[in-house]
Amino acid sequence: MDFDKKEYEFLFELGIAPSNPGCFIDGTWKGNGPLVTSVNPANNQKIADVSEASMEDYEDGLKACSDAAKIWMKVPAPRRGEIVRQIGDALRTKLQHFGRLVSLEMGKILPEGIGEVQEFIDMCDYAVGLSRQLNGSIIPSERPDHMMFEMWNPLGIVGVITAFNFPCAVLGESLYSHLVGIYLMECMYCISLRQLCCLVGLMVQHTVNERFGKCLLELSGNNAIIIMDDADIKLAVRSVLFAAVGTAGQRCTTCRRLLVHESIYQNVLDQLIEAYKQVTIGDPLEKGTLLGPLHTRASRENFEKGIDIIKSQACILFHGGKIRVGGSVRESEGNFVNPTIVEISPNAAVVKEELFGPVLYVMKFQNLEEAIEINNSVPQGLSSSIFTGRPDIIFKWLGPHGSDCGIVNVNIPTSGAEIGGAFGGEKATGGGREAGSDSWKQYMRRSTW
Amino acid sequence: MDFDKKEYEFLFELGIAPSNPGCFIDGTWKGNGPLVTSVNPANNQKIADVSEASMEDYEDGLKACSDAAKIWMKVPAPRRGEIVRQIGDALRTKLQHFGRLVSLEMGKILPEGIGEVQEFIDMCDYAVGLSRQLNGSIIPSERPDHMMFEMWNPLGIVGVITAFNFPCAVLGESLYSHLVGIYLMECMYCISLRQLCCLVGLMVQHTVNERFGKCLLELSGNNAIIIMDDADIKLAVRSVLFAAVGTAGQRCTTCRRLLVHESIYQNVLDQLIEAYKQVTIGDPLEKGTLLGPLHTRASRENFEKGIDIIKSQACILFHGGKIRVGGSVRESEGNFVNPTIVEISPNAAVVKEELFGPVLYVMKFQNLEEAIEINNSVPQGLSSSIFTGRPDIIFKWLGPHGSDCGIVNVNIPTSGAEIGGAFGGEKATGGGREAGSDSWKQYMRRSTW
Amino acid sequence: MDFDKKEYEFLFELGIAPSNPGCFIDGTWKGNGPLVTSVNPANNQKIADVSEASMEDYEDGLKACSDAAKIWMKVPAPRRGEIVRQIGDALRTKLQHFGRLVSLEMGKILPEGIGEVQEFIDMCDYAVGLSRQLNGSIIPSERPDHMMFEMWNPLGIVGVITAFNFPCAVLGESLYSHLVGIYLMECMYCISLRQLCCLVGLMVQHTVNERFGKCLLELSGNNAIIIMDDADIKLAVRSVLFAAVGTAGQRCTTCRRLLVHESIYQNVLDQLIEAYKQVTIGDPLEKGTLLGPLHTRASRENFEKGIDIIKSQACILFHGGKIRVGGSVRESEGNFVNPTIVEISPNAAVVKEELFGPVLYVMKFQNLEEAIEINNSVPQGLSSSIFTGRPDIIFKWLGPHGSDCGIVNVNIPTSGAEIGGAFGGEKATGGGREAGSDSWKQYMRRSTW
Amino acid sequence: MDFDKKEYEFLFELGIAPSNPGCFIDGTWKGNGPLVTSVNPANNQKIADVSEASMEDYEDGLKACSDAAKIWMKVPAPRRGEIVRQIGDALRTKLQHFGRLVSLEMGKILPEGIGEVQEFIDMCDYAVGLSRQLNGSIIPSERPDHMMFEMWNPLGIVGVITAFNFPCAVLGESLYSHLVGIYLMECMYCISLRQLCCLVGLMVQHTVNERFGKCLLELSGNNAIIIMDDADIKLAVRSVLFAAVGTAGQRCTTCRRLLVHESIYQNVLDQLIEAYKQVTIGDPLEKGTLLGPLHTRASRENFEKGIDIIKSQACILFHGGKIRVGGSVRESEGNFVNPTIVEISPNAAVVKEELFGPVLYVMKFQNLEEAIEINNSVPQGLSSSIFTGRPDIIFKWLGPHGSDCGIVNVNIPTSGAEIGGAFGGEKATGGGREAGSDSWKQYMRRSTW
Repeated sequence: MDFDKKEYEFLFELGIAPSNPGCFIDGTWKGNGPLVTSVNPANNQKIADVSEASMEDYEDGLKACSDAAKIWMKVPAPRRGEIVRQIGDALRTKLQHFGRLVSLEMGKILPEGIGEVQEFIDMCDYAVGLSRQLNGSIIPSERPDHMMFEMWNPLGIVGVITAFNFPCAVLGESLYSHLVGIYLMECMYCISLRQLCCLVGLMVQHTVNERFGKCLLELSGNNAIIIMDDADIKLAVRSVLFAAVGTAGQRCTTCRRLLVHESIYQNVLDQLIEAYKQVTIGDPLEKGTLLGPLHTRASRENFEKGIDIIKSQACILFHGGKIRVGGSVRESEGNFVNPTIVEISPNAAVVKEELFGPVLYVMKFQNLEEAIEINNSVPQGLSSSIFTGRPDIIFKWLGPHGSDCGIVNVNIPTSGAEIGGAFGGEKATGGGREAGSDSWKQYMRRSTW
Repeated sequence: MDFDKKEYEFLFELGIAPSNPGCFIDGTWKGNGPLVTSVNPANNQKIADVSEASMEDYEDGLKACSDAAKIWMKVPAPRRGEIVRQIGDALRTKLQHFGRLVSLEMGKILPEGIGEVQEFIDMCDYAVGLSRQLNGSIIPSERPDHMMFEMWNPLGIVGVITAFNFPCAVLGESLYSHLVGIYLMECMYCISLRQLCCLVGLMVQHTVNERFGKCLLELSGNNAIIIMDDADIKLAVRSVLFAAVGTAGQRCTTCRRLLVHESIYQNVLDQLIEAYKQVTIGDPLEKGTLLGPLHTRASRENFEKGIDIIKSQACILFHGGKIRVGGSVRESEGNFVNPTIVEISPNAAVVKEELFGPVLYVMKFQNLEEAIEINNSVPQGLSSSIFTGRPDIIFKWLGPHGSDCGIVNVNIPTSGAEIGGAFGGEKATGGGREAGSDSWKQYMRRSTW
Repeated sequence: MDFDKKEYEFLFELGIAPSNPGCFIDGTWKGNGPLVTSVNPANNQKIADVSEASMEDYEDGLKACSDAAKIWMKVPAPRRGEIVRQIGDALRTKLQHFGRLVSLEMGKILPEGIGEVQEFIDMCDYAVGLSRQLNGSIIPSERPDHMMFEMWNPLGIVGVITAFNFPCAVLGESLYSHLVGIYLMECMYCISLRQLCCLVGLMVQHTVNERFGKCLLELSGNNAIIIMDDADIKLAVRSVLFAAVGTAGQRCTTCRRLLVHESIYQNVLDQLIEAYKQVTIGDPLEKGTLLGPLHTRASRENFEKGIDIIKSQACILFHGGKIRVGGSVRESEGNFVNPTIVEISPNAAVVKEELFGPVLYVMKFQNLEEAIEINNSVPQGLSSSIFTGRPDIIFKWLGPHGSDCGIVNVNIPTSGAEIGGAFGGEKATGGGREAGSDSWKQYMRRSTW
Repeated sequence: MDFDKKEYEFLFELGIAPSNPGCFIDGTWKGNGPLVTSVNPANNQKIADVSEASMEDYEDGLKACSDAAKIWMKVPAPRRGEIVRQIGDALRTKLQHFGRLVSLEMGKILPEGIGEVQEFIDMCDYAVGLSRQLNGSIIPSERPDHMMFEMWNPLGIVGVITAFNFPCAVLGESLYSHLVGIYLMECMYCISLRQLCCLVGLMVQHTVNERFGKCLLELSGNNAIIIMDDADIKLAVRSVLFAAVGTAGQRCTTCRRLLVHESIYQNVLDQLIEAYKQVTIGDPLEKGTLLGPLHTRASRENFEKGIDIIKSQACILFHGGKIRVGGSVRESEGNFVNPTIVEISPNAAVVKEELFGPVLYVMKFQNLEEAIEINNSVPQGLSSSIFTGRPDIIFKWLGPHGSDCGIVNVNIPTSGAEIGGAFGGEKATGGGREAGSDSWKQYMRRSTW
């Protein structure tokens, strides 16, 4: 059977056909559940079909995982690391194709698609080193002729609910879980068809807590960039553009709020509006495109609804708020919208929520304290950034009375995390940490002996 | 005003009078809420009265904390550590009196009361050192001319619900929170009047989660000791006695289940019964007493109900289960009960629950795998211990297929943790860790910059 | 027997008499070696006599240490920590007297003498915490059913050669050695009579290496402060004064070289000369004194010789170098000299050496690269500092092409280390590290099993 | 030009010709120094020629390194790690050929040659992970509004003197240096022609110390295995055979001394002699060979001299010492010797030295204390091992009064280190540590700011 379009034929290289079983159980592909269709967000036409797991498939899969875990846990960690290395190498040989698939299904531009797969590969390399460093401790005992130890053992099977916007990288982060003793049961291409509603997080946590299970949450962000009066404005504007429009505003770390010191406010706003006008919108797979479509038709509708609310709140509050650029969808078969800049009060209710698209709220502040207060005034606590050259401001920003986010950047955008550091945030963002530092401990259980 | 009994006059040394305000707010003692009476569990007679906080007091206290936290967080950590050192030194000068108070109110024997206060003092000393080691990291960045950091800032105000059985030490563990930037608002002597129902934990967690707050839970334990056929039986029996009867079975780490290899089962049981018969029961403040009363009259009634259930389940299951020693309360003014040994099947429902008193369930097993399975078959996962001299057994016990508890001991009882290690457990025990290792991180928020 | 002066009577409080045995062996004070006399550097009059160890005393002491070490090493580290805590508390009760002794013998002003003893006490507190954290590691093994560990055991007896300028604090740093398993055999008051010639360090190292012993060296410093054109000049000048004149220029971390950007050179120099003129010179025990005497008459002579060399080199090189302030000794019974500022070329040979007194070389530079090059152009590599408000300069200064010293400060003087960090330097400074971080490992031996 | 033997033609695959320039400078192979010939130790016939560096080549190389280091140090560590990953992958594709070269030149059997290259590759993988974890610390400052940091910067150029017995792996360990900022100037195949005389180590150290450079020494070992009376004798004998005869006794971690409890002494000795008789000696490249030749003709002569001394000392001491197996060279074109077992007193002078060949000294002991004393009675302190099933013995062995070596094994041989742990030893072994744990710090300089 052939794909509808010739341009999809590269998918055969990845083992993907026009119709695919969606789950991989004990070495075999199957899928007796409902059929779902993956569509291209640039034109809403079908790419391929996937048959999902039935409940019975799911139970079979879990049983297979459970059996495998018993063996896998006893494999020495450095040997598990060697398998992870081979996974990374396998991906490396298909980097371009895989990146193209991510772009095709998700709608992000090609360099972003490839970059995401590269992040998965980097995580693999990192995990290989880590496989010899899942260290416990020998702690001095206060009792003569006794020893005290702290050791880490694998948790066992780990379930992953990945996100539509980083289908591949999020799975990569969960490699620790692989590393430390589980079998991933999700098939990779299937995952990019899923969409995680962030509100579900809290429900998941409650359910898991009831059985005293462990939960690692990375939910929504509502990330601000602060531009101080002494900032390098060119650098700041370029960074805001990248952080607000990149991935069509569908990153967890997308900049959604821009706080500008009053003395440079108009200057920054003017430059930013100018920059927004240059953004090339179109097919994410085409060279030169900066902004692709939103992921689904529903996202596009959601964007429209959001704009309506923004307009109404801007009015009611009489804060002079208004849409300065964009604020409309684009007529096309795809899910394209125009990148949008809104002047609004930090107190507007809509500012507290995460509208998952390229909408940037711009606000004015008078001093650092006010800027930090606005930064911290939303329920979410993922990423944040300040642009300034003054060390005293930087250290306040980083300190106990500074940003309350998990990621606290300086002179770089809110997006663009590195895998060596811990990724995640506080408050409604959920408190989980992925990637570097001691994040691996979350996939293990600790014993003191 | 005088105390009812002359023997309570040492309380004046601790600043405690026959009637006391129960909360300490912004430098002043007050308490406009309901009056509670602290009674001596050895005779159920009044020691002193405490007036608790009214709702308004509570709000005042929280406001005072909040104001203080702003200043306190900016005090350099080593200077906060110096205050903690002074707290420890202040307790050191009143160690004997304070230990006597703990014994008097809680009902534990005097060496246990003093030991508990000493643990608080040790935590202070430990925290002083820690105040110069709340280290973040500098992590190599993948971007030229960039640096990546991970830093820890204080969380702010921390609320502590302490436990009646370790009123003082639990508060001591929370010193980290003090250390890292809060004001403790509980007054100490008042705390020993509280009782925490462990089932409340889950409810607390859900409530805190709803506002995406952080929760550190240390709930119930249902701790087993395994005696292998090659064990040093004398050492094991002495350890079981200590762990099952100590603090009248009201420790989190009390041994509640004893698993004995079938080949030495009868021998161990006989020796243990003999040992139980020697236990001196009486006033916990009197020298030579090994077993004091339960903490409240309600606990004593609970014990009676528990024994009834045990008897019924022992019958129904036809597992040969029966009460071998004890199984009854003692007639007295106080809350005394007899230390109890029960032979029972590991499958009896009652074995899965924590009866908070000196009741020990004894069971037989055939091999290590079975013993570990039984050990792990309860909802709780706090402490566990094995007695054996064989390294291969020890390493299985400690490994991924071994004990699923947070504390995994070898040749020492389930009780008796050291402050240098992380204290806490998995599953229904709640997952929190206190005292040593990296437990301090739970009182802080992490930022990656 | 009485002291020569009534003002020395406070020494009785410290257990010091006009004549004292100088070594403490197995619980007893003795000293059958040569008599040395401790003199007051402010007037070169006798304070007290000390009889040093004979060779036989030394051997006895070593034998006693060796016997004690066998027992001491087996005492659990937290209990060794408790002894260290008691040492700190004992010093705390005599802080004022002890600080006065340090000032009296060494010649530093009283707040410095007290500060030094306080540093010892702080080290004790820090070491107590550390006694529960001398952690080894459990490392994942690549072989099935194997475990890998890394553990730290005490080295055994450690010999300490302390320095006349920090007699007490250096000994305090060596508390780790106490902590990790040795017996200090030096008596404390005796130590302040010793003088360590820094050149001896290399010889010591070679001798110890020949028997493959371990050596921890902290030798000379030749520390520079760089003032960039954007610096807060008032703050910088105050810091230079403190770092160059404090302890009469006899700190390891004394600022000996001042590098000033050409655009602010004259301004900084003028302000500094003005500040030097305000320095109060006199009895270190008197309130208000900022500059006491050098430690010995020999030091004063050395200072004179140094000034002669400076003058000759300043001439020969025609670099416009000249003495701008000071450059002479003060006529008195004591070892007083005038604090000195010299303008000189960075290439003058005398600048590469450490003249252990209050002499500051001032030089001009054109840009950061040149300043760093000058900073790194001396054999020593202990401390260094830059004054600037620009993050890009700060990060260059800290990076791989920045300062090559062990201590790399920003906007604080070269002196003033904290015990939580590792103290020591590279190159001719010897490479050893004391106080915080993982310095304790130097007193232990590592085993991988 | 062709190789003398057809079987050497695989070397072309590695870029090696019958005649080769020996140094790689700034991208070009050259070598204007003396010609050295690499010979096959199995027949002492020529493999290939290498022209070494002239002094001028050396200076050119150092200049090129120095220029490269300036750039390389500024490349972000994770990108340096990526280069290391590619080096590992390049080796992976030539693993078999490279392993064959190592065996051919060094004389070790093929699985050992391949294993050694694999170790290099593993080190690469490990270093990749490490490139994101060369972490410094943020340490709480005691001063308000100050921060304290500890950071690690690359040292710069690192010179490596590798060893003939592990030409490849030792170079691999030095990958950290590559990783942390240097350019390796040694060409790889050339290295296997070098021989390091261990006695040179001390001289190197003194020379480097004179200029206050850093030195990381891994010198000789004189490693003992202790067999307790309760040991698994079959396992122990197999382990001793592997550790004493493997690599023809030319490993740093070769077992040179066997200490056996008197109660099982004769039994162990008999089994060991039996095992030695089964050892297949011959061409190391041939399947089934267990023992190849010594590396050089000189080593073979040295072996003969050693045997003469052993005989004389065995006689003089009347300790009943005698050669039980081997003790002679094999007549052949190669450097073959017979594996040798000697019964001897632990006090014999020859036992204190490292005879770099397959000679095993066997001794008797009465109890653990005596065994440990013998273990520790030699100048070297690299590796050691005990065979026992008793935890109390194991913990004594590992503790402060146990083995004084850097590697302290239990129930595995003295050889066989893993890269995740720190490799190296104390006393005359030199104190350096390579491979895992925090060994990377030795290639960096620390700054506290």
